[in-house]
Formats: sequence, structure tokens, C-alpha cells
Amino acid sequence: MNYEKILAEIKPTKKESEIVHKIATEAINYINKIAKKEDINVETSLVGSIAKDTWLSGNSDIDIFMCFPLNTTLSYLKEKGLFLGYECSKQMNGIAEEHYASHPYLTSHINGYDVDFVPCYNIDSAEELKSAVDRTILHTNYIKKHLKDAQKDEVLLLKKFMSEAGIYGSEFKIGGFAGYLCEMLILKYNTFEKTLKSASNWKNKTIIDLEKYKTAKMFSDPLIAIDPTDKNRNVGAALQREKMAQFIIASRNFLAAEDEKRIKYFKPIQKQIKCKDVINQFKDRKTKTITMIFDIPDVSVDSLHPQLKKTEQSIAEKLEDNEFSVFKSDYWSDEKNIGVFIFELNVYKQNKYYIHEGPKIWDKESADNFLAAHNDDYYIIEDRIVLNKERKFKTAKKFIKSILTEKNIHAIKVGKNLKDLIISSYEINNVEKLLKDKDLKDNSDFLNFLDDFLNPGQLLKR
Amino acid sequence: MNYEKILAEIKPTKKESEIVHKIATEAINYINKIAKKEDINVETSLVGSIAKDTWLSGNSDIDIFMCFPLNTTLSYLKEKGLFLGYECSKQMNGIAEEHYASHPYLTSHINGYDVDFVPCYNIDSAEELKSAVDRTILHTNYIKKHLKDAQKDEVLLLKKFMSEAGIYGSEFKIGGFAGYLCEMLILKYNTFEKTLKSASNWKNKTIIDLEKYKTAKMFSDPLIAIDPTDKNRNVGAALQREKMAQFIIASRNFLAAEDEKRIKYFKPIQKQIKCKDVINQFKDRKTKTITMIFDIPDVSVDSLHPQLKKTEQSIAEKLEDNEFSVFKSDYWSDEKNIGVFIFELNVYKQNKYYIHEGPKIWDKESADNFLAAHNDDYYIIEDRIVLNKERKFKTAKKFIKSILTEKNIHAIKVGKNLKDLIISSYEINNVEKLLKDKDLKDNSDFLNFLDDFLNPGQLLKR
Repeated sequence: MNYEKILAEIKPTKKESEIVHKIATEAINYINKIAKKEDINVETSLVGSIAKDTWLSGNSDIDIFMCFPLNTTLSYLKEKGLFLGYECSKQMNGIAEEHYASHPYLTSHINGYDVDFVPCYNIDSAEELKSAVDRTILHTNYIKKHLKDAQKDEVLLLKKFMSEAGIYGSEFKIGGFAGYLCEMLILKYNTFEKTLKSASNWKNKTIIDLEKYKTAKMFSDPLIAIDPTDKNRNVGAALQREKMAQFIIASRNFLAAEDEKRIKYFKPIQKQIKCKDVINQFKDRKTKTITMIFDIPDVSVDSLHPQLKKTEQSIAEKLEDNEFSVFKSDYWSDEKNIGVFIFELNVYKQNKYYIHEGPKIWDKESADNFLAAHNDDYYIIEDRIVLNKERKFKTAKKFIKSILTEKNIHAIKVGKNLKDLIISSYEINNVEKLLKDKDLKDNSDFLNFLDDFLNPGQLLKR
Repeated sequence: MNYEKILAEIKPTKKESEIVHKIATEAINYINKIAKKEDINVETSLVGSIAKDTWLSGNSDIDIFMCFPLNTTLSYLKEKGLFLGYECSKQMNGIAEEHYASHPYLTSHINGYDVDFVPCYNIDSAEELKSAVDRTILHTNYIKKHLKDAQKDEVLLLKKFMSEAGIYGSEFKIGGFAGYLCEMLILKYNTFEKTLKSASNWKNKTIIDLEKYKTAKMFSDPLIAIDPTDKNRNVGAALQREKMAQFIIASRNFLAAEDEKRIKYFKPIQKQIKCKDVINQFKDRKTKTITMIFDIPDVSVDSLHPQLKKTEQSIAEKLEDNEFSVFKSDYWSDEKNIGVFIFELNVYKQNKYYIHEGPKIWDKESADNFLAAHNDDYYIIEDRIVLNKERKFKTAKKFIKSILTEKNIHAIKVGKNLKDLIISSYEINNVEKLLKDKDLKDNSDFLNFLDDFLNPGQLLKR
């Protein structure tokens, strides 16, 4: 297949590239100038996909790393790093915002581009690692050194393919393939198509060991991609098993398709999702779906998503424990104001009683105590004393309401920043009522989420 | 406690005893006379609880065993045994009926008593055993030899106590304590009260080894009662764990009660069960209960009950497998014409889809075949291809109907004599509709069954 047409769409134009590099160069020069003036010992460099020349058109986050000598104190690094970032942002008329990874960094919106100013240590090898961001230098250098020019286009094709399959990005929300992992795959398999051909035959615990470190046995992940800059690290560790499986299936589907159809794998699926259709689909499933909407805390998305997922899964487990059979559950957030949990239930309403298990009859003391503490309605199942106890909560809604109180919330695992906000702000609705919320019914990301909830797997096929 | 009043009610009167023994002696003498005349070499004797003098008033099955020499052929034994039984029955104006245990025997209704004529081999020890009934001779002899006169009353108290607790009788329907086992317990513990005191402290795998054979390690039942006439046999093998547990609890309750209350443990619980109350209780439980009524085959009760139980349990399991959560199920039969299964469901109606699991993605060939065979709606859960499949049966009733057909009945385990009759005659109703059936709504045994279904454990307390 001829990928020229696709590349023409996804590869940054010469002009786009010039603008981005101009901003980067200007920023680096200005930082170096201030640093010299202020006598700050720092080496500033462009890193990430722009430095590696593997960025998709329109996805141009400019990563500028300020590398301090290894003997710099952390507090000095933080202070001077932020100072330099702010100075540069000011000079370039940017709007700056502080963020936190392993330590604080600055993101500035300059001329329509996001520029990250990240202080780090100037390391030469993984053994010198002082903070997680330091690796980026090593990764950038490794790819710049080993990735051939012709392979850069292959990386772009792979990133775009993964992006449209919903599996690109190593952030928690996606749990997919990191950009660096894509580059490693092309280094291993040389082309986009060969990568897909290999992936379509991948087995569980596939090993990518570019530098032949032979350290794969340290890991038990489904994809073991030994970091060429650190033999003790698996770049595939953050890749969810499910995302890897989706890549394999999407690869097989792509390879089995005709050229015309293959082109579609590089484009988003066009669809117009209507609230009415979503509601009707839920009705058709003959389940009972309850949603929880609540305010979210002001924390980074990297912290927010794990907390949301943990909480939603814990509630779903508790529902199951209490015999409200969960058909499917998931979470969504606009990452600004609200979070939504959705629980689709096969069993919403329970019978009046459940069988409460007492001790086995063999243990006379426990048995006597149990009988003394309970009324007369006990009976025996096998060799155990049991009784029919009335359920406190006959519907899933009442059950959730009982859990989400100051007193009972300890029964579930709740993200630490979510706890108070959920208790004070949550509302329970069915889908139809939830979609009366103006902010949600017009939110295409939320409607997409619901559509994917109802019809998962769409992105794997064209 | 003084048990005289209770014994006065449960012990056969002198007159009752005289009548029974008169019938038995007359039968034995007549059989011996015919045998002599026909030159049949047989020793006839009275066995069982009447011979052992441990029978409850009103429960007087007269067991007459015709013991043939060990070298007799089985066909001769069967032929002559039945012949002698029929002759005797005729002579005494009885109404005879053939039954089958390990081989045929005759029951004759004579003067209002059931007399069993059972041919067997004249064995002196378990090693000579030729048929299961032969043991009865050994058991009768052992008890007659070892049970002291004073202990006979204790046996009666124990049998009556167990009877009113619903745990007396080793037949499959009850799965409780055999008469012989009761006698063994009194031989071990000497009195009724001491038996209950010991039982209230029984542990799992309690051992009763009267003859100190030390063979208990051969068995893993909860009650190991080594047969004093056969060291390789556990008399407690047929005792259900649940019935043993019920005896333990009833014993504890009895021992904790005042004398006045203790007396009640020897009497049936008086209750008037009304259809309306039963129906209302089912409604109150907020379950959905479906019943199956069907014709039963003309087989012995010993064969009928295991078949009914097996079939009911298999249907209940299939319901569970298909996510119709069963709160409780049971079976009942009048042992003449009809059987009834009852399934009380926590989940009666299902959602439209279930998740159908395909192969894991790692196995490319299986995965490709699966995708080729199915439509496009698949997706991935973890590393497995799955799809939402529409359920064929959304209600438990429709599901059961689909199973109970010539084509599909192989999916459940059905008693061999039940299969055709169930398919051709079954009807599904709710409890209210079932109780419109005239034969059932006035059948106190059936109403008792429903009452016990709703309120199990009543017999353990007073």
C-alpha cells in the first residue's frame, strides 16, 4: 500500500515545523541568556517527539528541558527551573500554568502552542537517575541516534493508526502505547506494516529487547519492551493488557483489509450521536442503569483518573457482593468540573430476604452465642446455622445511597481527593434524566463515551 | 425429668403387643408348617423393631424373615420365599403386594397390620453376606443380645424425639437416623438424656465404635457408627450431614428447656396451615416462585425420591448457570400420582444480552475462526474476544420450557423413570395458581411441605 496520501495529512508541513522550531529555539536561547545573566548553570534542550521529529501534525507539545548538574540541590533546581520558565514565558507573551509530575514544571501557552518548561538533572545513564522526568533526555538521545530518517514516517503512521484505534498514549486514562514505545517498535520491526504483521502474531509476554540486555525474565507483563536506556525497566509496563489485545486485533483487521478500507484506519470514525438514540439503546438492553454525577477535585488528570477508576470499581464490586449483578460499569470526567459513574445492572431490585450464615453447629460456644443473639427463625443448611434476614436495601440505588455517607463510605475504596466531594455533591439518576443536564447532553466527548459504553470495540474495525 | 408420662403414650400397650406377636407367631408357624409339607429347608423368624422390642406404639411393621441355607440358589430362594409368603397371606386373609429391595419380598395387609415376608440367607456373620437384607438378622440378634430391658424405653424416647424433629428414618426421603442406629446410640450412651447430652457436644466425624474395631479411619462421614456386626460398614453413612446437625441443635434446645417444655418435643407441632397464608408469605418474600407439577412413574418410593431430588437439583443448577439466581428450591410428591418442583427465584427476568466469551486473542487461528463465524459486534475484555449475545430466554419460565423438551432435556440430569412423564405432563404455575388444584389445596402433607419450605427449622424448637 502507498502511504504517501496518509503521510501528507499527518506529517507536519514545512511551515508548521518551522514555526514550532522557531518557538523552541527562541525559548531555549532566551533561557540560556537569562541563565548566563543570573549565573545559573543549566543546559537547555528540546526533547520529546518534536526533537525526535516523530510528531503528528497538530499534536505539537514543545518540551523544553532545563538540565542541571547532578550536584544541584533539588530545591535549587525547582526554584531556578520555575524562575527560568516564568521569565521565558513572560518574554514570549505566554500564559503560564504550574503542573506537577515528579516535581513542578511550567506549561505556557505561547502563540497557540503549549510549551512545557521542565527542570531536570543532566544525566548520561539510567544509573544517575534522580527524578522520573530525567529519562526523557536519555530517550530523546537514544531515538535521535538510532531512528533512521525513513523510519520517522513509519513512526507517524503507527502513532496515527494507534491514535484512531484508541490505544495511543501512556497516560492512565488511555493506558495505551507511549510515543517512545512506538519508536521502539519501529526500531525493532523497521516499518509500520511489518510492525502490524508482527503484532498480529504476538503472543502473551512478547519481548522487545533492542539492546539484547536479556533482562526480560524480570517482568511478567504481556508486552515486555526493555528500555534501551535502562535494562531494568519495561517500557510496556503501563500498557494495559486490553489495549495490547486491541492493537493485535486492529492489526489483524487492517492487514486483512483492501487498500481503500485501510485508509479509513487513519481517520476518525464519523458519527453523529443523538441523546435519543443513546437512551433508546439503553432501554433496548432491558437493564436498569444508574448514573452518579458529582463534583471533582482540582487535581492533575494523572491523579484524577486513577482515583475515579478505583472508586467506580469499588462501588461496582460492592454492588456485586450484595447480589446486584453488574452487567457493565465505567466512569467519565470532563477533567474540569464533574465526574460520572455509570452502573448498568442486570439485577436492580432484590427479594426481601437473604440467607445470613451463622457458625457451624460443631462449635457449640459460637453456635450458642449466635442463637442467643438472634431470634427464633434460624434453621440448618448442611452443618451451619443460618437465618433469613431482611435486606436493608432492596434496590441498588438505596444501597449506593447508604454507602455514600460519612459513616459508611469506609466500606468502599475511594480516591482520597474524591471522598468528601462525592458525599457532598453526588446525584443519582437514570441515563434519561442525566441527559437532561445541558452540559452533558451537548458534550460530544460524553456522548462518545456513552456510545462506546454501549458499543465497545468500534475503533478496532472499519 | 420423669419420662413415664411420655412412655405411657409411646410404648405399645400390653394388648397391642399381644396382638402383634400373635399375628407374627401365627404367620411363622404357618410358614414352617407349609415349608415342612413342601420340604422347603427354611428357618422363619421375627426380626426388626418388634423382635427387638423397640417399636413405637402404632408403628408396628411386622418383619418376618425366611432364612434359607447359604447353599440355596437365588432363584430357588426367590421362588420359594414368595410362595411361602403368598400361602401365609392367603391363609391369614391378607392382601398381598410384591415389593423389591435387593430381591423381591411380599407385604401383606393382615388385620390392619403390614406384614413383610422377606426371603434371605441364614448367615452368622457379615462375611457370609449374600444380599443386603441378610444383615437384618445380624442386627436383630445383636440388639436382642446386648440391649438391656431398661434401655428399651430409652430407645423409644430417642426414636420418638427424633421422629418429631423430622430426623428419624433412614429412607432416602428423610435421610435421618435408622432405628438400628438409635439402638446403637443407647448401647453407647445408655440413656436418652445422656445420648442428647453427648450429641449436643458432637464434633464432625464423631465415632461410635461399640465393638472397638478401630476401623473408623476407613470413613469420612460426619457420624461414623461402625456396625457391631460388620467392622467395614458405617451405619451412619446414610445419615445426611444436615439431619445430624439438626439432631445436635434439637438436643441442645431440649436440654436447655424446662421440663414442661421438654414434653412438647415428643409431640407434633400443632398447626393449621391455610392456603391464603402460604400465598401471602410467598408474596411477602418479594421473590418470584415457579412450580412444576407432573405425573410420577409407578416405581418404589426408594427409587422415586432420589430421581425427583436429582432432577429438581439439576434444573436449579441450570437456572443458576443461566443467571436466574435461585433463592431456594425443593421437591414434593404424594408418592402416588404427582410430583411437584418448586423454584423460588431472586432473579426471574434477565436483561436482553449476555457476554459471550470467545477465544483469547493470542491464539490467532481460534480468534480468526471466531471472528469469521460471528458478526461484527465483538469487542475485547482483557485479552479475550467477546460479544454481547441476545439471550434466547429472558424469563426462568421460558428457560425451563425450553429445557423440558425431547430435544433439550439432555442438558439436565433427569431420573430415568421421570424423563418421558415430565416432558409429556408437566405444567408450570405460580404458587397461587398451583394451590387452585383441588387435590393439592386440601392435601395437608403438601401444605406442610410448603410451610416448611417457607419456615424451615420449626421442628428443632418448641
